Amino acid sequence: MAETHARRREHVRDALASAGVDAALITSLVNVRYLTGLASSNAALLVPAQGPAVLATDSRYALAAERDCPDLALVTIRVVEPALAEFAAEQGVRRLGFEAQVMTVELHAALARAGAPGLVPLGHLVEGLRVTKDDGELALVGRACAITAAAFDQVVTGIRAGMTERELAVAVERAMVDAGAEKPAFDTIVASGPNGAIPHHAPGGRRFEPGDLITIDCGARYAGYHADMTRTVALGQPAAWQREIYALVAAAQQAGIEAAVPAAAAADVDAAARAVIEAAGHGEHFTHGLGHGVGLEVHEEPMLGKAKPGTLGDRVPLTVEPGVYLPGKGGVRIEDTLVVRSGAGLAATRDLLTVTQTVPPGELLVLEP
Amino acid sequence: MAETHARRREHVRDALASAGVDAALITSLVNVRYLTGLASSNAALLVPAQGPAVLATDSRYALAAERDCPDLALVTIRVVEPALAEFAAEQGVRRLGFEAQVMTVELHAALARAGAPGLVPLGHLVEGLRVTKDDGELALVGRACAITAAAFDQVVTGIRAGMTERELAVAVERAMVDAGAEKPAFDTIVASGPNGAIPHHAPGGRRFEPGDLITIDCGARYAGYHADMTRTVALGQPAAWQREIYALVAAAQQAGIEAAVPAAAAADVDAAARAVIEAAGHGEHFTHGLGHGVGLEVHEEPMLGKAKPGTLGDRVPLTVEPGVYLPGKGGVRIEDTLVVRSGAGLAATRDLLTVTQTVPPGELLVLEP
Repeated sequence: MAETHARRREHVRDALASAGVDAALITSLVNVRYLTGLASSNAALLVPAQGPAVLATDSRYALAAERDCPDLALVTIRVVEPALAEFAAEQGVRRLGFEAQVMTVELHAALARAGAPGLVPLGHLVEGLRVTKDDGELALVGRACAITAAAFDQVVTGIRAGMTERELAVAVERAMVDAGAEKPAFDTIVASGPNGAIPHHAPGGRRFEPGDLITIDCGARYAGYHADMTRTVALGQPAAWQREIYALVAAAQQAGIEAAVPAAAAADVDAAARAVIEAAGHGEHFTHGLGHGVGLEVHEEPMLGKAKPGTLGDRVPLTVEPGVYLPGKGGVRIEDTLVVRSGAGLAATRDLLTVTQTVPPGELLVLEP
Repeated sequence: MAETHARRREHVRDALASAGVDAALITSLVNVRYLTGLASSNAALLVPAQGPAVLATDSRYALAAERDCPDLALVTIRVVEPALAEFAAEQGVRRLGFEAQVMTVELHAALARAGAPGLVPLGHLVEGLRVTKDDGELALVGRACAITAAAFDQVVTGIRAGMTERELAVAVERAMVDAGAEKPAFDTIVASGPNGAIPHHAPGGRRFEPGDLITIDCGARYAGYHADMTRTVALGQPAAWQREIYALVAAAQQAGIEAAVPAAAAADVDAAARAVIEAAGHGEHFTHGLGHGVGLEVHEEPMLGKAKPGTLGDRVPLTVEPGVYLPGKGGVRIEDTLVVRSGAGLAATRDLLTVTQTVPPGELLVLEP
């Protein structure tokens, strides 16, 4: 793994000149992890054009850094960013790239006061590198997704009338951990009946009733990589309106998945799914973007949405998650994580990573209440 | 609860003039929650000197905001901060306070480009208000701590040789949720044997062995409020050096607790505990600060440390958590959450919130291996 991280740092180093800087100060903890392997709540990395990269973290993580980052210069200190900025100045760095999307105004001012080199926004340099995954990363995302699907399959058949949203959310999270997740990738959403109209409903004490649609949005984290999956199931025979919006969302998802090919514009992928929902008169009820990249963060680039820039690359894990939400009545969301790849020739393949046995694609699972 | 939040916003409003601003743009999500009751991953609040406060959040949280914040003007929008800054400009705000400790350089530049009023750092205004807790908050911190202690008592007696750190961490977290926690306040630390020398060890596959000290650092979250507690126990009869550092850390904690009175300097509280450890020749093995405030964040003001500013107030929940870490050998940390209060007259009381039945203060629990 140390070689992988060194190679990633080389990509950063190679980009410094065109970014117009002599060194990069990486302060996003996720980006530090991507470039070093160190998972820390307090760390920063200096990547200079010349000379070795320097990792700073505090004493709580010093032993882990020594073990996992043998090829890096290490500084053990409580306040990491000023130490690296000072070191950069001593090394003759005159223009220091920084991550303006992460650094606070307060820290920026403190660095300038402390005599840091000229601070130049680096843009989303490392985030851009992170979009395309290597084989090792794809395997970890795949494992996170497989754990998620297996846990869902195990728990969904136990849903009964009278169970609370909260109880189901806890059961899903425990099943993911039992199946090998290091932890849930995010707080599990369980939204039943009218709560299904709230896309990010916090699962509470509502008890399931016959006639409910139940939306379950869950994901496992495995070795730092995330999965994200949503299924909507019916408790008892669904009403016509429930079958109708379920079929609509499933069709929209299929259209989105088919549009998600390498070189497709992110906005076009969103539009392909949205057009299906709009054509059915429910455009106003699909209130969020179609999906997002998945990796060391559960939401990362590329974002799929109406006005989102960029095109899809090769080997990019992302979610496709259309929904229809009817205030006061309920809702449906279906979400999968898949990998967009170039296949043989120019054919695109999409590896579906979140394959559930209980809910095959396009089908509505109807549970006995 | 709406009245409580309105009263808190009045405190912000009252402070605007002395901060030299016409309005405050609150972008810390924790501070937004403190001032509105809304728990959202995307929200901001405008508190003007004149006129109603305005809460902005996106469609995922709009229904929750309408329900929980009936007395606030609501704006439903995806990108919340520019919308509020623009509204402030329209209302004639010329100097807009912002939270420089939270706002990124990127967002700050975007607001300035979009014609925001003059942006003036607000300091830690809301964090300062949050230090002293009202009765409702103290009850919630107390409940979180009681859940934590009960879960620990239930799980600790099941520790056996051969169990892994990871298994114990999962058991503690499940016991907290079963006892009523909404979730763990942070990733539980279980550090056994030599791993005990790593203050923030991530629990892994190491199996407990007779002769281990095992450090368990855990906490529950309840209604948004946090608990933080650490116990170190012995598996089998401890060696002399283990008894010695345990007694030392317990004595240091007691000294720290006794020094934690209203009006005490934060640095003096740290020093009172640190002096005990230094006198025993282990000063270099106590590598972190003595403690921190606890509330809507698990680590919040006041911070107790060597060079930390400020004095303790009344009704401030905080942790006292000295440790001694011997590289390659192991370590001990003992942590409690307590509330510093003024008692009758000037007598100070310290309510210990994390009371464990299995491990009374100062005692080392020795488990059968």
